[in-house]
Amino acid sequence: MAERKRTEIAELGEFGLIDRLTSRFSPSKGTTLKGAGDDAAVIDAGVGEALVVSTDSLFEGVDFDLTYFPMKHLGYKAVTVGVSDILAMNALPEQIMLSLGVSSKLSVEALDDFYEGVEFACRELGVDMVGGDTRASLTGFVIGITSVGRVRREALAYRSGAKLNDLICITGNLGAAYMGLHLLEREKRVLSDVKDPEPKFAGYEYLLEKYLKPRARKDIVESLAEEGIVPTSMTDLSDGLASDLMQICKSSKCGARIYLERIPIAKQTSAMAEELHSDPVVAALNGGEDHELLFTVPLSMQEKVMRMGGIDVIGHITAENTGAYLVTPDGSDIRLKAQGFKED
Amino acid sequence: MAERKRTEIAELGEFGLIDRLTSRFSPSKGTTLKGAGDDAAVIDAGVGEALVVSTDSLFEGVDFDLTYFPMKHLGYKAVTVGVSDILAMNALPEQIMLSLGVSSKLSVEALDDFYEGVEFACRELGVDMVGGDTRASLTGFVIGITSVGRVRREALAYRSGAKLNDLICITGNLGAAYMGLHLLEREKRVLSDVKDPEPKFAGYEYLLEKYLKPRARKDIVESLAEEGIVPTSMTDLSDGLASDLMQICKSSKCGARIYLERIPIAKQTSAMAEELHSDPVVAALNGGEDHELLFTVPLSMQEKVMRMGGIDVIGHITAENTGAYLVTPDGSDIRLKAQGFKED
Repeated sequence: MAERKRTEIAELGEFGLIDRLTSRFSPSKGTTLKGAGDDAAVIDAGVGEALVVSTDSLFEGVDFDLTYFPMKHLGYKAVTVGVSDILAMNALPEQIMLSLGVSSKLSVEALDDFYEGVEFACRELGVDMVGGDTRASLTGFVIGITSVGRVRREALAYRSGAKLNDLICITGNLGAAYMGLHLLEREKRVLSDVKDPEPKFAGYEYLLEKYLKPRARKDIVESLAEEGIVPTSMTDLSDGLASDLMQICKSSKCGARIYLERIPIAKQTSAMAEELHSDPVVAALNGGEDHELLFTVPLSMQEKVMRMGGIDVIGHITAENTGAYLVTPDGSDIRLKAQGFKED
Repeated sequence: MAERKRTEIAELGEFGLIDRLTSRFSPSKGTTLKGAGDDAAVIDAGVGEALVVSTDSLFEGVDFDLTYFPMKHLGYKAVTVGVSDILAMNALPEQIMLSLGVSSKLSVEALDDFYEGVEFACRELGVDMVGGDTRASLTGFVIGITSVGRVRREALAYRSGAKLNDLICITGNLGAAYMGLHLLEREKRVLSDVKDPEPKFAGYEYLLEKYLKPRARKDIVESLAEEGIVPTSMTDLSDGLASDLMQICKSSKCGARIYLERIPIAKQTSAMAEELHSDPVVAALNGGEDHELLFTVPLSMQEKVMRMGGIDVIGHITAENTGAYLVTPDGSDIRLKAQGFKED
């Protein structure tokens, strides 16, 4: 018998793998308004309304390190991660469910802390925690989050609606979470042999907060509604600006040009990058976990968007097959590349 | 500083732990019709309709062993596990999402097989696979399944509606999946040192199928609708009859009496139990993973329920605080106990 071909997952990359696995499915139910391929699935919820549903998971050792990640923050962050996908559809989150795999290493008190963080985030966002299960895991802490949100159908923002000349907007600033992670990893290495470690975090609280306790940008979705803006496309910044912008370009069948000097980077991010002899723009493009929103609006909306505050226009959408480029201050174009699957 | 108390998860047990962790949450949104504490959460979906949402996870080494679990069957079973929670609300499944954690040990072809099984189950059930993500996992294959279903609100069956003298009904037969698992584990042990193992499964195909490829009982929810029966309470048999019946008693604030000789057990299950010198009733009560449905109906529905076929009435609901009992043929009462958290 011939040996069956073995393709390594790393050969396809994360997005290639997901495309391959989900390509066999196409929605057949009338109630499925949007299937795989966006931040969340969209399901009919009565006249004019839709529910958006999303699922995410976080794995110990890949997505978080319990040696420095406080359980309370982890609970808070799990909610942010889940809810960000709902916001990325321009919907408001209403419910979450948690499905945990817990090893015997964790105590009940540690799980209490985790749920305290979950509760805090839920209260802040006005979201109900409506269930899920807790199972034994042989292999570290696993967090599954299912999030449900609601939106008027005409306000839905898919990844696929960006049009030529639309403005590319982002909320907040980028790269801070990535620098926070690097800071924590550095202190872990430095202090691994010290008995009572006192890590040096003074001055970097902002970076730590962006990594350990990022806020979901519900305020932005509310402001967009107040201003009467429906983004032509939207996604959340979880994989890094380059990757997430390329997802919009792929879904919307368009290109993009963004300008390096317009990418908002916090002072602390730049300072930390300097200390680490690294480039803060690389952190912004490829770092990920910012949990900010990336969206496009027609050129005519520029004034309205600027009035909202806390939003930067970093570039514009170009024609199909022109690719996605970063324009540097000296005028040269750098083609953006998506980051691959995190195979640790 | 005083040492903080450390309570082991095993001290509370699975249900105690989930109760403790979720007790801090109570729904505040008008759209949350039912929060934690049932097979699925219930969310407003327009006039007269509700969506039910459920989340589950399966962990390699705890819930399945890839040395004998074919990936295609595992994909099929993951859908059954997810969809069973939706059926247990008397709702029909419409969408599922998958969130996978994959280790580099798995090839792309193995994941193709898994998704082929998912697709097969989705087609059989008329369910859309609408997304989810695939991530790297350091520690074996992790499967997260989110399921969404729809139901007219007046047809919803919670765990909490069982009334005094209601009949306790179950579909199919019990304990077969547990015996299938034991058979696979035995062959694995016996053949672990053999070069080209040829496991002896002849005559036991039924047990293997019940464990490796259980069917979700969508047919039952459809038949109940055709007969115009809305169960007063319902849950799926995933933890074993004892545990699942006690969940209904707890939620419905009632007791129960079930009769040993009425518990349906397949011939192959009894034969395998004899071979293993074990009791098939123990497998039925505590084995779990049957993915059949357990429900209650008013006494007046007895004839209608019997007409449906494939359903056994195994006992009746008793008053609050009377406990849940198994009545043996010699007339003695055995108090049912829930099985704990599977801490392997």
